[in-house]
Amino acid sequence: MIKVSVIGATGYAGIELVRLLSKHPEVNIIHLVSHSFAGAEIETIYPSFCGVSKYTLEDMDIEKIAQDSDCIFTSLPHGTSDDVIAQLYNYGKVVIDLSGDYRYNSAENYEKWYNTEHAHPELLKESVYGLPELHREKIKQTRLIGNPGCYTTCSILALAPLIGKELIDESSIIIDAKSGASGAGRSISQGLHFCEMNENIRAYKLGTHRHTSEIEQELSLLAGKEIELSFSPHILPINRGILATIYANLNANTTFEDIYKLYTDFYKREPFVVIYKQDSLPELKYVCGSNFAHIGFVVDQRLKRIIIVSVIDNLIKGAGGQAIQNMNIIFGVDEKAGLDNAGWYF
Amino acid sequence: MIKVSVIGATGYAGIELVRLLSKHPEVNIIHLVSHSFAGAEIETIYPSFCGVSKYTLEDMDIEKIAQDSDCIFTSLPHGTSDDVIAQLYNYGKVVIDLSGDYRYNSAENYEKWYNTEHAHPELLKESVYGLPELHREKIKQTRLIGNPGCYTTCSILALAPLIGKELIDESSIIIDAKSGASGAGRSISQGLHFCEMNENIRAYKLGTHRHTSEIEQELSLLAGKEIELSFSPHILPINRGILATIYANLNANTTFEDIYKLYTDFYKREPFVVIYKQDSLPELKYVCGSNFAHIGFVVDQRLKRIIIVSVIDNLIKGAGGQAIQNMNIIFGVDEKAGLDNAGWYF
Amino acid sequence: MIKVSVIGATGYAGIELVRLLSKHPEVNIIHLVSHSFAGAEIETIYPSFCGVSKYTLEDMDIEKIAQDSDCIFTSLPHGTSDDVIAQLYNYGKVVIDLSGDYRYNSAENYEKWYNTEHAHPELLKESVYGLPELHREKIKQTRLIGNPGCYTTCSILALAPLIGKELIDESSIIIDAKSGASGAGRSISQGLHFCEMNENIRAYKLGTHRHTSEIEQELSLLAGKEIELSFSPHILPINRGILATIYANLNANTTFEDIYKLYTDFYKREPFVVIYKQDSLPELKYVCGSNFAHIGFVVDQRLKRIIIVSVIDNLIKGAGGQAIQNMNIIFGVDEKAGLDNAGWYF
Amino acid sequence: MIKVSVIGATGYAGIELVRLLSKHPEVNIIHLVSHSFAGAEIETIYPSFCGVSKYTLEDMDIEKIAQDSDCIFTSLPHGTSDDVIAQLYNYGKVVIDLSGDYRYNSAENYEKWYNTEHAHPELLKESVYGLPELHREKIKQTRLIGNPGCYTTCSILALAPLIGKELIDESSIIIDAKSGASGAGRSISQGLHFCEMNENIRAYKLGTHRHTSEIEQELSLLAGKEIELSFSPHILPINRGILATIYANLNANTTFEDIYKLYTDFYKREPFVVIYKQDSLPELKYVCGSNFAHIGFVVDQRLKRIIIVSVIDNLIKGAGGQAIQNMNIIFGVDEKAGLDNAGWYF
Repeated sequence: MIKVSVIGATGYAGIELVRLLSKHPEVNIIHLVSHSFAGAEIETIYPSFCGVSKYTLEDMDIEKIAQDSDCIFTSLPHGTSDDVIAQLYNYGKVVIDLSGDYRYNSAENYEKWYNTEHAHPELLKESVYGLPELHREKIKQTRLIGNPGCYTTCSILALAPLIGKELIDESSIIIDAKSGASGAGRSISQGLHFCEMNENIRAYKLGTHRHTSEIEQELSLLAGKEIELSFSPHILPINRGILATIYANLNANTTFEDIYKLYTDFYKREPFVVIYKQDSLPELKYVCGSNFAHIGFVVDQRLKRIIIVSVIDNLIKGAGGQAIQNMNIIFGVDEKAGLDNAGWYF
Repeated sequence: MIKVSVIGATGYAGIELVRLLSKHPEVNIIHLVSHSFAGAEIETIYPSFCGVSKYTLEDMDIEKIAQDSDCIFTSLPHGTSDDVIAQLYNYGKVVIDLSGDYRYNSAENYEKWYNTEHAHPELLKESVYGLPELHREKIKQTRLIGNPGCYTTCSILALAPLIGKELIDESSIIIDAKSGASGAGRSISQGLHFCEMNENIRAYKLGTHRHTSEIEQELSLLAGKEIELSFSPHILPINRGILATIYANLNANTTFEDIYKLYTDFYKREPFVVIYKQDSLPELKYVCGSNFAHIGFVVDQRLKRIIIVSVIDNLIKGAGGQAIQNMNIIFGVDEKAGLDNAGWYF
Repeated sequence: MIKVSVIGATGYAGIELVRLLSKHPEVNIIHLVSHSFAGAEIETIYPSFCGVSKYTLEDMDIEKIAQDSDCIFTSLPHGTSDDVIAQLYNYGKVVIDLSGDYRYNSAENYEKWYNTEHAHPELLKESVYGLPELHREKIKQTRLIGNPGCYTTCSILALAPLIGKELIDESSIIIDAKSGASGAGRSISQGLHFCEMNENIRAYKLGTHRHTSEIEQELSLLAGKEIELSFSPHILPINRGILATIYANLNANTTFEDIYKLYTDFYKREPFVVIYKQDSLPELKYVCGSNFAHIGFVVDQRLKRIIIVSVIDNLIKGAGGQAIQNMNIIFGVDEKAGLDNAGWYF
Repeated sequence: MIKVSVIGATGYAGIELVRLLSKHPEVNIIHLVSHSFAGAEIETIYPSFCGVSKYTLEDMDIEKIAQDSDCIFTSLPHGTSDDVIAQLYNYGKVVIDLSGDYRYNSAENYEKWYNTEHAHPELLKESVYGLPELHREKIKQTRLIGNPGCYTTCSILALAPLIGKELIDESSIIIDAKSGASGAGRSISQGLHFCEMNENIRAYKLGTHRHTSEIEQELSLLAGKEIELSFSPHILPINRGILATIYANLNANTTFEDIYKLYTDFYKREPFVVIYKQDSLPELKYVCGSNFAHIGFVVDQRLKRIIIVSVIDNLIKGAGGQAIQNMNIIFGVDEKAGLDNAGWYF
């Protein structure tokens, strides 16, 4: 059994991770740390745990956590977990970080998009971008994962097979993404007050959202040259899930069949990626509650443009589920362990 | 034209009142006061006003407001508007207060339910409970209205025809009320954070909600004896509207026809009350956007119990619309002026 | 491993049952029958199954199903499954029926509320009402379960500890229940068209809903005398879950502590019932995704009335989850097998 | 007073038109035609009209309608209103058609996108595309309006100022549009069943939606050359409103100020278009309930791309409100008559 701890267990990503870990057949939960609720039972904040699992939330004690755990998940706000992670890592433990801090190959890139100095740039050489579909081999070798963002996972998986193949004009990529409100987290704000969000949709941070830089980093790596793209996030009046509609100009008379073969080949061994047949597109509710990404597309012959529709559960494949998938890979257990359920549809 | 001002114009009840007043054919809006946003254009907080009406929010200047206005609406948190109202009233103006402060016939009753001393008990002799269907004649004579609460309006209108007629056991009344989240106002809180409220329903303040005391006061007045009842509010994951399901034991073999006649007689001259025929019940969406109350009922012969379903828009008939109806009555204009539209259904 | 089949696998209750069974550690799914979609892969109707489980929907072949299965779940519309069930039962198999047909102790009662003759009244002597909290011992002995309705489960669990103890006036019970729209099933209708239901709430079948009779039957059994009560269902603009607010007059000066002790004693060995401490009430989202019932209450000393708030997931504890709990009991596996997860909160 | 009739009064667009007309100060409603509900009072289908306006729905009697009316609105499914419209037009009446049939300059274009022969191509020379912001002068002269589609209005208004000015690469336009479910109308279907749509988002008809052709027609006219573009509709789990996110590559180092000036100049006399200042974007709820379009943009200097966010109420500016705006222009009354209210925000 893998002994795991979670730091930042009561945010939305944290609690979903705990929910998933609590049913993982190879995991023992050791410590759950919550700055805000130390000392409380988790069921007093999330009563959905009543009668299922008793966990007492604890204050941070890095030494104790490191000694007791094989694997620590950190789900703290960006920029606040740096020293925590470095210390845990230096104890020789596996650290899977759900913040943006270890998702970058270079500190410059991080600092450009996060507007703050990186506290441990030396660790960026150790850390691996935890998207198994692209970096499974490297993930196996590392002890420090920068777990990808939710928008990022949805977007990269949808685009990766196309990149570096001269099929599309790589300067034409536009990602129009729509996310449930849980992506914005548990902290209250006027814009997330029920009556302000309900029966609404809101575009935000157009052209400046930090996940842009993650998507660009990973696609540039695949392309072997710098890719820049438009990423437009929107918040929806629903709890969960991301649907991204993605556009790129095709270079030639590519057919649906060409694209379908490309994607099914690219993902043929992937346990969590589903490619849709012609004339069908994924809907957001098809993946809620699961670790799956569903991807479909339309090849618009009239305009020589491909339109890709990609969906994930932002809190699972876009956060805690993917973090567990990374843990599974690192510890050599079945990659699907704890994640092999169907979504709940409604 | 009636010169009106609104104090507390940017809360949810306040802004809905402004929206309705801005289209009222007999009204000129003079001052809109907002402590939080003084100096701002209203359209910067509520962009739905862009291109329609330009209003600059102002700081409170009681003397100026009193001098310039015929009628002042106060929509401030309970207990904070006391001196404001007394001063405005003493200037000889009409004051329509949307808080709970002037809804009571006795300071004791107020103090019991609000747990605070009433600042101006002497004014309770002047103030009239602004439910036109019960107190239209008194409303005509007053300059100080305690505008009824939203749950209260929905409940009293549903029960009034039955009271004092020996038809029901008046100790058996139970009101199970379900309200949209706008009833909780604009102030943010964890419980009204989008993901906490969406796909949820929550009962709260069972047996202790302050509106209980308003309902009991008014029904006791009608009964000529003290009535006590259960009032159970619930919050729904929708923006607007209240649906109350109300129960009472019947004293005899009363039929639907008896009840229907009683209600249609009671409300026959009322412009904003609709009574439903047998085998039909109002739904919440039938009244959203309008000043109407729709009331239907089932007479359960098996159990000798009547079940009443009553719906209103909590922000209109339950707040600003009723306030305007009171103004119309006091100033002798058509009671329906500014309020004679159908709801928007969806 | 228990070999199970599901007849009626593509309705909302059916597919949720399949989703739960597909993860049950002691179950092999053998046949999934769907009249509407025979021949199709289940993932073509519910794409949430893509990549998880491949099941081909089949036409009904009772002999084959009976031969291949240990346990058959029937989730067909009321009145359509009668012969199917009788035949399967006569093959010596365990049958767990999610319709209303085998929930009654007497055919008369069924016929009164369903307005149709019961096809196999002789089987009502064999069948057991599958509410484990009341009938666990009988469930162990039977091969035919009438699996309780969703409203019913939520209501009976909330009331059972009070009944037959002279604590309440048993003629005063009122159940005001609010359900998500999945309770109305997959069949389309104008009232469940998105824009008609969204931002709405609707009361229906007040005093006449069939689940009334189930609740009365079970409570009367507990009381040792006939109990009649008001049951008022409402449909909410959400997908899942039921919250029931229940009222009864107390006979004496019962305190919260008395009630709390009564309930915690009554349910002390129950794996799926959670009783709330004073000043806390369950919300609907606390149980969505789980097999739990959460129950809280307020003792209104002023009115000598108890108000109970009870929540379940209508598709799990109110349908498929409870069916699995019954199967677990009958086959002697851990009662929590396949059901021991926390709800998903959002 | 303008005597108006509505054919197809009970669909979602029809009933919203009736709601708006019923409050129009210059309008008398004469006939309301509904094939499905002839003979019924409108309040029996839409109880929101109870107590406000009594209208009896009628069967179609073209001669009578034409004789009694100055202006007839037709809100029938595409392809079914052709003869009706021709006959009414030939009676010399003003006809404002909300279907797609008279929105085209050429029958070929119509036939290509609607896959059906146009019944009265000769009338396409008479009909005017009823978007006042582009065709006000022609609208004044015509008696036959093809009232624009909802997606179309939102998209064209957002793009028109940019077209034909060499500012953008006109082959790079991509419109990603998100609509409330009322856009799909009142007819029930599995995809619009509450539980299938709630907590979901769905892309559909990517690259093939008919509104594409309207947008292309109008922008091509402005450009003086053929423009082709991507249009991707999505349906949201909300009732009303459209938000379109629109992308185009800029030809040069255009600044926000340049664009802002261009748009404010272009729309400076328009009563229903609001242009947003830098760093602010419209949200969908800002326009629900009003006839306004709100338009904001981000100029992404990094990518030389403009991103435009445009919102309208699909049933008002996208249907009935715009139809009334056209009527106002044709009959020479104040263009804002009946439409000069703020949206309801929530």
